[in-house]
Amino acid sequence: MLSKSQIKLITSLQQKKYRDNSGFFVAEGPKIINELIDANFEIHNLFAIEGTTLNSSSVEIISKNELKKISFLKNANSSLAVFNIPNQKSISEKGIIVALDAIRDPGNLGTIIRLCDWFGVNQIICSQDTVDCYNPKVIQATMGSISRVNVVYTNLLESIKNASLPVFGGTMNGENIYTKELPQDAIIVVGNEGKGISEEIINLLTNRITIPKFGSLQKTESLNVAMATSILLSEFKRSTEK
Amino acid sequence: MLSKSQIKLITSLQQKKYRDNSGFFVAEGPKIINELIDANFEIHNLFAIEGTTLNSSSVEIISKNELKKISFLKNANSSLAVFNIPNQKSISEKGIIVALDAIRDPGNLGTIIRLCDWFGVNQIICSQDTVDCYNPKVIQATMGSISRVNVVYTNLLESIKNASLPVFGGTMNGENIYTKELPQDAIIVVGNEGKGISEEIINLLTNRITIPKFGSLQKTESLNVAMATSILLSEFKRSTEK
Repeated sequence: MLSKSQIKLITSLQQKKYRDNSGFFVAEGPKIINELIDANFEIHNLFAIEGTTLNSSSVEIISKNELKKISFLKNANSSLAVFNIPNQKSISEKGIIVALDAIRDPGNLGTIIRLCDWFGVNQIICSQDTVDCYNPKVIQATMGSISRVNVVYTNLLESIKNASLPVFGGTMNGENIYTKELPQDAIIVVGNEGKGISEEIINLLTNRITIPKFGSLQKTESLNVAMATSILLSEFKRSTEK
Repeated sequence: MLSKSQIKLITSLQQKKYRDNSGFFVAEGPKIINELIDANFEIHNLFAIEGTTLNSSSVEIISKNELKKISFLKNANSSLAVFNIPNQKSISEKGIIVALDAIRDPGNLGTIIRLCDWFGVNQIICSQDTVDCYNPKVIQATMGSISRVNVVYTNLLESIKNASLPVFGGTMNGENIYTKELPQDAIIVVGNEGKGISEEIINLLTNRITIPKFGSLQKTESLNVAMATSILLSEFKRSTEK
């Protein structure tokens, strides 16, 4: 049986300020919850309806109706967990680091985390105005990849200024990504959905790159930021396959 | 002023059976509407609030509240158009043709249409159980690209059987997409979100290809179908850039 204060706490975690105050975030569904448990994320509360298989013995059984009350999803899953937000880990200057400049859409951030996981990129640095990676929509969109990718919020401008790695970013008139030789260690900057990479950070790029457009008409829409990231990561990683 | 029967007709167009019966579909927002007008899609009705710029003189001005009543979006845009669904155009066996096997999510279909447009691929053939491309969520997700890509619904199995082009499809143990030589003319099959490509169509593939996984852990989630399509199209098209 859920108490009123539990319901209040959990539903408040949809908002960043309450996540920051409490240090908790929510994940739903056995797949994501089990991946977080297996990655040693610390459980604060674990709720599930009868018959759900979870990798923890401390499950509190609740009714479907109770789950509905605390779920952030349109169709509540079978389980919901409240985890402690882990401390930020430091970033090491090795391999590919993805740098996010003001990504605002939770679905985009979740998809980018999932893409990084696929491509074996486990470090993401985010500007302070990038959407919070513990936003429940981000957590769900990562499909569990959040447990394997280190996401760090930082003063992005300063971090890039102080980095010794080459800094790549997509711009309108950069070098063709398909013909450019790409290094194995680099920062790849991905810009805001509407405005792209901010001017201050553009000025810090050591390499401007462009995904060429093949459509014949100039009207062709720009690529969505997650699509562009998938092509960039694919290009950086493909060279290791030869 | 909208009549009751207009409101009834327009709101019914969210459902495929009413689109099929009436031969109409809905698009919202000046960007998409203008691209469809410019591509000679035939307008049945065009509604907008005062001050909206549309490339047509036959606009009926309505109030924000009226627009809310007929809009499919959470936040109604400034305009809504009812267009005639055009007749299916035939497919020519030239260049890249994307074949969709039971894609169910409107957002995925819209994104794939947008990706095709970016990569200059203007032919998509869909199995009959692929989500309808005139679904309002698909239309909005294409961002106007639907006006430049020919989407045809067909018996996919028969179409692929009768095709003379090589047929590529993503499978678990195919050839590495990054090292395989890829032709300029081909059918690329993209499978259902959950089940992948159906077995009957797998058997018709002339080339099985795989996007290699770089993540070290086996748990890494599979790629979302739109992400996989972006990487496949990028690989097929990049060879023309050398």
